[in-house]
Order: sequence, then structure tokens, then C-alpha cells
Amino acid sequence: MLLKNRLNDLKKVFKAENILLGKEECYCYAFDSSNLKSKTKIPETVIFVETIEDVQKVLQYAYKNNIPVISRGAGTNMVGACRCTEGGIILNFSKMNKILSIDSSNMTATVQPGVVVGDLKKATEAFGMFYPPDPSNFKVSTIGGAIAQSSGGAKSLKYGTTKDYVLSLKVVTSDGKLMTLGAKTIKDAVGYHFAQLMVGSEGTLAVIVEATLKLIPKPQTSRTILIYFDDIKRATTFVDKIITSNVYPSAVDFIDNNTINTIEDFSHCGLNRTKQCMLLVELDGFLSAINEQIEIIKKLLGNFSSNDLKIATNEEESDRFWQARRASYAATARLAPDVLSEDIIVPRNKLYEMISECNSIAKKYDLKICLIGHVGDGNLHPQFAIDLSNDEEFKKYMDAKSQMYKFALELGGTISGEHGIGIEKKDYLEESVGNDTIEYMRMIKKIFDPKGILNPGKIF
Amino acid sequence: MLLKNRLNDLKKVFKAENILLGKEECYCYAFDSSNLKSKTKIPETVIFVETIEDVQKVLQYAYKNNIPVISRGAGTNMVGACRCTEGGIILNFSKMNKILSIDSSNMTATVQPGVVVGDLKKATEAFGMFYPPDPSNFKVSTIGGAIAQSSGGAKSLKYGTTKDYVLSLKVVTSDGKLMTLGAKTIKDAVGYHFAQLMVGSEGTLAVIVEATLKLIPKPQTSRTILIYFDDIKRATTFVDKIITSNVYPSAVDFIDNNTINTIEDFSHCGLNRTKQCMLLVELDGFLSAINEQIEIIKKLLGNFSSNDLKIATNEEESDRFWQARRASYAATARLAPDVLSEDIIVPRNKLYEMISECNSIAKKYDLKICLIGHVGDGNLHPQFAIDLSNDEEFKKYMDAKSQMYKFALELGGTISGEHGIGIEKKDYLEESVGNDTIEYMRMIKKIFDPKGILNPGKIF
Repeated sequence: MLLKNRLNDLKKVFKAENILLGKEECYCYAFDSSNLKSKTKIPETVIFVETIEDVQKVLQYAYKNNIPVISRGAGTNMVGACRCTEGGIILNFSKMNKILSIDSSNMTATVQPGVVVGDLKKATEAFGMFYPPDPSNFKVSTIGGAIAQSSGGAKSLKYGTTKDYVLSLKVVTSDGKLMTLGAKTIKDAVGYHFAQLMVGSEGTLAVIVEATLKLIPKPQTSRTILIYFDDIKRATTFVDKIITSNVYPSAVDFIDNNTINTIEDFSHCGLNRTKQCMLLVELDGFLSAINEQIEIIKKLLGNFSSNDLKIATNEEESDRFWQARRASYAATARLAPDVLSEDIIVPRNKLYEMISECNSIAKKYDLKICLIGHVGDGNLHPQFAIDLSNDEEFKKYMDAKSQMYKFALELGGTISGEHGIGIEKKDYLEESVGNDTIEYMRMIKKIFDPKGILNPGKIF
Repeated sequence: MLLKNRLNDLKKVFKAENILLGKEECYCYAFDSSNLKSKTKIPETVIFVETIEDVQKVLQYAYKNNIPVISRGAGTNMVGACRCTEGGIILNFSKMNKILSIDSSNMTATVQPGVVVGDLKKATEAFGMFYPPDPSNFKVSTIGGAIAQSSGGAKSLKYGTTKDYVLSLKVVTSDGKLMTLGAKTIKDAVGYHFAQLMVGSEGTLAVIVEATLKLIPKPQTSRTILIYFDDIKRATTFVDKIITSNVYPSAVDFIDNNTINTIEDFSHCGLNRTKQCMLLVELDGFLSAINEQIEIIKKLLGNFSSNDLKIATNEEESDRFWQARRASYAATARLAPDVLSEDIIVPRNKLYEMISECNSIAKKYDLKICLIGHVGDGNLHPQFAIDLSNDEEFKKYMDAKSQMYKFALELGGTISGEHGIGIEKKDYLEESVGNDTIEYMRMIKKIFDPKGILNPGKIF
């Protein structure tokens, strides 16, 4: 608990506009994009940091006085990773949102943590460069958060996740020291990879204050094809055929019949309601190679109706196909007061089993479920439409979720592909990685954060 | 020091053919591919492990009795990472060389640590898959070593390094416990990325006993073009032009005039001795896209003589171009009794400065130097041909090396791109990453290896 005189200390250090003290103002920062039912606290203050020195000042003070510090970008995470479990200080990075440099010669960008992912993506294109990670919320989510949550996206199949683009980080340690981890070069074989250890650590080890990210040459263009299937198994195994025939899609997303109909009910995109599912296959690179790949895909489809295959003829048309996919969350949200978007991943040859099990579980508990996912890499996002205020329904959802995780683990998968653990999945961590690993995590945490002030109550 | 009764204990556990005890036999394992002048010890025994349980038995015994354990694959590392600083046990992984599975649906391979990188590369191709990392020694070096040393290769520009392909590891801890780190899925956002922490840790944190690696779809084909330049600066900046024009080479290697002439003296490849340097640019993917990229490259070259651009018309011809590059080490080795292959990396826009400085330093100390490198990612391998038995020459080399590292660091680069630190670069670590980082490395080491028995005397 932050005592009043401590808040007064901090007030002396920061401009009035950069420190929120009122309960109403702080209340706005008590939530993120997770739909946690468990109660968390209201932060005692929110500090808008503008410089690395600001961050150091807060941490030096917090360390001395044992005050929890929670870093926050856009608050878009789905697992409660920037909720306050014990009150404390929210470090708000929205003012540290500058792209410090884009260097096409070295294929790197150096950014402050509050830079919005989409802004970076756009800025790099002007340099002939490409920053591939594209979490669905890239238009609002920040780089700092993407690193902290080990965020992925549709293009992970070909391009990997945020982890694969982090070269070097500046971090402030729990006692306020500034450290540089990793190197700004594409390769680095100098000791332990601490920058990689920070990725996915959800603000529990240090506070990221600057990131140097790898960029790649911009692909000439991209095209998306939409394929309808009458058989889910055929859809999930179709990807196997593609990737063993030299075709390397940048994304393969899956939308099931429930989702198709939910999208159509609310967005009228013109999708075929009668089909069991659809795949969106995105190809990028040189147009000549894209066209070759489309021909291979057609051949692999064998006999198909021309109504079941739609090929975008330009990038705008491709984008319209993806709009349907992006509309799915909002559409599902109209089915019930709340949508809980899950995030599980399984080896791709187990995808059909996982999808079938999700549907069985939803049926068993009488829950509305829309199944979408980045199936190119086995990552499913079952979206449950429920009423969180209905305790009985919530209990059913919790049971369903627990069964879903258990099954994903049985299939050799895991409980989070790209959202992280936060508070929401903490209880399932032991089942997922085992006690020995958690014990090592605790020891590592203790080294970096001996007083336990950095984002307490998260991951384990 | 291993006492005689302890060796007798171990003799009871392992088949006679799997445990070497004779001094002459053990002497063969006192060296690796580094050219260290500093004295290291002869291991007291070499144990050929065949199973994970074998590894556990050795570690349980070593932990109890405080005996150093050094893991060894093919012993190809360049920095003394598998030398014995205090005697102890060499764990020899050459019999744990099985590819356990290649799963094209999930795009993964699960392998024992002793699998030769080249064998894995070849095996995946039969499944339509591709394992990109290609350290120059891939025909002999092992996966375990590649992970331990954070190994790279020519294709790092497009495909990243070994680090980017490690999904999950089974490791045995210093006290003999078996742990699984990471998940076998392409994405994984479940807590701290311990598998990544093991990459580049040079056997100092745990012993890798199994790895699940990411594969990607096999590119349809590849072509290499050879470009001669009369001006080194023009060569190093030419890459900038390529990558901002949608061209994404899988590799860009550089060979300077000294190296061209050294290769020609011994291998007679037909290279043009009059040129300041040459670039090998490899393009892969669909042939149509490769051809488009070749046209773009030609346009970017502007006016050029057709003698200065050679385009391989098939994969065999491409391979012949690379044979010249691969011959460079052996050719340099004929200039003097020893070759010391360095490994520095700088941001690519500083490459010209770095190359010039390397040449100035070599001139200042009157040392023979051949400069080659994966210049697509700023990684230079200056090869010094010297006589290690000549103390004066060795001192000059050490001074030259130290200046080279200093300059690389000043340019924002680092002291190892892909070889690691081992013993050879230990003294330069502080200058490279700073004392705070080393302090954290020590603390992490202490957690995983409280008794300090795992590969002692390496990295820091």
C-alpha cells in the first residue's frame, strides 16, 4: 500500500500532467483487455514516463520503498498481465512512443516501448523494409507489450513471433539500473541471451525501455486466397500438402462454420454459410512466385468447385478477405455480453482432434463457441460468448477451459501460443511446464527482482 | 582431479568400449578446433554416452563428487569451448547421433545432440523440408554444439541462426535431473524462454540431450551469382541497394583480393586475381522469383562488364562458386603453420570501416590476413596466417586481435557473431557486455550449476 507521503514524494518528481493520483483516474488503469472475474486492485498512482531517467527514478524509489511497479503499454493483453494484484504504481509508456531510428542498411529499427506495432510496421515500409509480427490488435498494441507477452500473429507461420525480431533491449532493473542486453547486430554469440529471456517475461524481470528490432526486406506484394471446405479434417490436413510442395504461405487462418455464420449475421461479408469451414491462405513475395504457388495449391485441391476458391487479384481485395477474419471477435461479442478469447496451440497434425474436442466440450457445457485460429502453426483461438455475471455459466466456462487445456497438453501442445500467462493462466502453469521449471523461474525472478516488486502475481 | 577409485566407480557403470581411461586416448580429446596457445588439461576420462540415462548417471556422480563435466560433439568449435581447464570428464555425444523424428506436418525435427548438422539438413529434404542453419563446418559439426555455441552460417541473413530454430530442449541439469524446456510448437508464450537461454550457453548451464528444431518448407531451388568489384566500399554498400529493392538473398558472402589470390594459388578455381573483392549472392525460392531478383540486381549494378557478373544456371554451378569460398580456410592454412579464424560482427553500414581497419591493423603488425565474411549480416571472418610457435608473431597477433575487437565494439558491433566466447574471448567479455551483465550471467550460472562443475572456465 502506497502511503500518502510516498505519493507526495513522487508528486515532487513528476510534472502534474504525468502523474495521476485521483481514484477515478487510477480506476481507468485497473483493467486491461482480459475478462478476469477475480478481483484485482486499483493502482495507487499512474505515472506517464517520458524518458529512461523517469523510469529509473520510479524504480529507484519503488525499490527503496517496496512498492509494486506494473508496466503498461496499450493495455491490450488478454491475460491480466497489467492488472494490479497489490496496488502500486502503473508505469504508463504511452508517451514513450517514438521510433528512434529505422536503419535499412542494418535492417534494424530502434524504438521506445510505447510505439504502436502498426505504426512501426507502416514506418518501416517507407524504407523498403518489413516488420512482420502482426498480432490481431497491432493497430493499438505496443512494442513493449508485444515483447513482454511474446506476442505472435497470423504471419508467425512464415515469419516467427516477436521473439525472433528482438536483437537488443535496454532495460531498467528493479533497483533502477540501466542495462543493455544483446547486440544491435543480426547475429550475437556473446554469452547468455538475456534479451531473449526478457521476451515473454511479462514485466516480471525488468522494465523494457528501448528495443532494437530486426527488420527484413519488404516483400514485393501479397495475395490471399479463400478456400471453403465441407470437411474440417480435409481443411486442417490441406496445409500439410501445401508446405511439402515448396509452398510457404505467410499465413493460414481458419474460420469454422459457427464463426462464418456469426460474421454473416452481423457483418454481411458475403461468406458461404453452408460450408463447414474456410481457410485464408496468404502468399507474399514476388508476384511470379505467388502465381506459381497458387497453381500448386489448385492442383493439390484436386477437383473443386470454382465457388469454393476465391483468389484476390490485388492487395485491397486480399485485405477484404482478412476483414471477415478480423470481424469475428466483434461479431462473437454480439452473441453475449462477454467474449473470452482463448489461445491454445497444438502440433498441427493434432489440430483436427483439438477442434473436435473444443466443439464437444462446448456442447457438453452448453456454451456458445466460435473457432478461429492461425492453423498454419497449430494455434487456435476458441472464442466463448458468455455472460460473466452469470455465475453458473462462468463456472461452466472455467470447467470447459480447464478441459481444453488438459487436452491440448495431452496432444503435445501448450496453454498459450501468443497471449502469455498473466493472472488468467497461472493456475495451469504447473500442469503445463512442471514444478521443476517453475522452481527455476522463481530463482531467476529472484535474481532480477529480489524484492518482488516487478509485476507481482503474474506467471507463477 | 579425478582420483583412481572414482574412475573405477565409473568403469563399473559403463561398457569398456564407452569409457576411455588411458592417457594417450584421453589426450586426443584435450583439443578442439581452436588454436589456443594457453595450456589446458587432458581429460581424466572420456565417456561415450548412448542414452539420456547415461548422461544422468555421469552427472549424478560428478555432482556428488565435484567433478568437471565437459560436453563434446565433433569438437569443431573455434574458441576452446570444449577444452578442459581443470581435467574432469568429457561427455562424448558422437554415439547419440540419431534423428528421432522428422515431422513435416508440424515442421519439426527431434534429434539427439550428436546428429551432424549436414545429416539433418539432408534428411529433412526427403520430407520436402529445410533446416536452414549452415555453419561452414556443417558436414562435421553437431547440433548439440551448434546450439551450445549459438552457431550461424552464411544463410543467417535470410534465415537467422540456430537460435531461431530451437523450439524445445531436453536437458540434464548439473545434479542429473532431466528437464524439458520450451514446447514442440512453433509458438510458445508460457513463461520464461529457458530453451533460448540454453542457446549459446556453451554447456555451462545444463547438458543438452535432445532438441526439437523448427523446419521450414524447402525452397524450390537456389541460384548464386558472383559479382566482382574494383572497390570494396561499393561492394559493401551494394547489399543496401539490394535489400531495399524487395530482393532478399539467402546469403551474401565477401572475399577480398588477398583471399582471391590465396585461393587461386592453391585451388586454381579460375577467380579473377585483379579484382579488389567479390560477392557471392545466393537467391532461393521459386525460379521465377529468383530470375526477377537477378534482373533487379543487374539494374542496380548499372554499367558493368559482363566479365564481372557470373550467374550460375543450376544448383551444381552455384555450388562450385561456393567451393571457392569454402576453400579459403584451407588455402590460408598453406600460408603459415597456423590459421586463426576470427569472428566479429558490426552493423552492416560500418562494414567498410571495419574491413579497412582490419587491413590497417594487419599491415601495422606485419601479419598475413585473408578477409572473408557473411557480409549480408555484417559478420567478418578475418583469417590470420601465423606461426603459433613464434612467440613474437603470436604477441603481434594478440595485439592485433585486441585492437580489432575494440574497433568492432566502437562501431556498435560485437566480438562474436557465431563462434561463441569459450576460453579464447573470455578476456574481452567485460569490454563487450559490461560488468553488470557478467554479474547477472554469474548469478544465472550459480542457479543452474551451483557447484560449478559444468564446463568450468568458459565464457566468464
